[in-house]
Amino acid sequence: MLYQNTGSSPALQKSQLEDPLAHLPCGRISEYRRNEIIYNSEEPRHTLFLVVDGRVKVSRGTPEGQQVVIDIYQADEFFGEGAFLPGHSYSETAMALEPVKVMAWEISEIEDIVTRRPKLGIALLQLLVQRSMDFGSRIESFSTDTIPRRLARSLIRLSDRLGEQAEDGSTRMLPLTHEFLAQYVGTSREIITHHMNQFRRQGYLRYSRKGILLEKSAWGEWLKQNSAAA
Amino acid sequence: MLYQNTGSSPALQKSQLEDPLAHLPCGRISEYRRNEIIYNSEEPRHTLFLVVDGRVKVSRGTPEGQQVVIDIYQADEFFGEGAFLPGHSYSETAMALEPVKVMAWEISEIEDIVTRRPKLGIALLQLLVQRSMDFGSRIESFSTDTIPRRLARSLIRLSDRLGEQAEDGSTRMLPLTHEFLAQYVGTSREIITHHMNQFRRQGYLRYSRKGILLEKSAWGEWLKQNSAAA
Repeated sequence: MLYQNTGSSPALQKSQLEDPLAHLPCGRISEYRRNEIIYNSEEPRHTLFLVVDGRVKVSRGTPEGQQVVIDIYQADEFFGEGAFLPGHSYSETAMALEPVKVMAWEISEIEDIVTRRPKLGIALLQLLVQRSMDFGSRIESFSTDTIPRRLARSLIRLSDRLGEQAEDGSTRMLPLTHEFLAQYVGTSREIITHHMNQFRRQGYLRYSRKGILLEKSAWGEWLKQNSAAA
Repeated sequence: MLYQNTGSSPALQKSQLEDPLAHLPCGRISEYRRNEIIYNSEEPRHTLFLVVDGRVKVSRGTPEGQQVVIDIYQADEFFGEGAFLPGHSYSETAMALEPVKVMAWEISEIEDIVTRRPKLGIALLQLLVQRSMDFGSRIESFSTDTIPRRLARSLIRLSDRLGEQAEDGSTRMLPLTHEFLAQYVGTSREIITHHMNQFRRQGYLRYSRKGILLEKSAWGEWLKQNSAAA
């Protein structure tokens, strides 16, 4: 119940979805160094990207220079879908979080393939619906959750999406900085540090050399105890 | 510059987009009374809806009973796209804000038509990208804006989407309650009332018998003066 709105798709559900990759020919491959910009809003863009290897951060910049993380994408995930809108002007930036390999297709090429293989259209539709339902869940969290609860739900979502099981049963997350978490949760780095320290003291997470370890089994209880109504 | 992130598509951009309605046969028509529920999360749903007449509010409920408004949809706009995901479980509710006429298609039917008319796939893709970029803008606003700025951007977005030009050059919005604005902006009704009164005293909006009148020309300046950095 509590997890249903984090937007991660259970394995069962995933298996019923069409796979866009089954319908796409290989695209043009490019490589990027850590922290290199893949695209930003300075030039109009007509390309859809797929992560082949590594991780990519997509963020929005405000006119005042603040950054808001939209999401992180990893192998087999698409990004840059804004290019489907002719004349779009969203100030989005995609940056390599580590050495990254991506595949790229022109939107006109994708549209041609959809015409010949309509299942690709269905697959991309499902993917975009998933993404927009997921954004809906974040809007819900922003609207109703306290900052520690927003942080907790973000940690759970990010570890569901990008984490891996550690030997001791906990979940190892990407080595995400407090700065990153602040840009994802929508608060200051100082506030993130404060709550991460509290979570650590209370045993909900540990820091290791390789990243943050999350005690997943404990978080369901935390969310119940710290519900918006409590 | 300031308006580019509100998510409303300028007429020029709109004209370059594919129109899903050009590729769809008529669906089954139903009518709903004011405040009647069109769907909620209690039963699995396999239907995509189009508003034919009237306005529909789509919202999410939290386990604690709070409501978050996702958006309002009006004539020629689709809603219920979550049904594209097999086994989805988002707790979404669609309610008629006034007497409403909607058209409905089974998702399987839409998928069949996409197979025969792939342009429908492209059209729906563009629509979903637009929607998810728009959600991205709301996430950006939640992350970086103060409450009055979030309210200001919401009023501008909602009047761009759902308003009409009044005789004196101002924009007449739907008669939205403060309760609705609170569920859209993510704050309490009391705080909305406080800021709406301030906006009214400062001449940015007026209340009339038919709804809220927005002095659109003044808001660009307000946003500049009340930027996140200020």
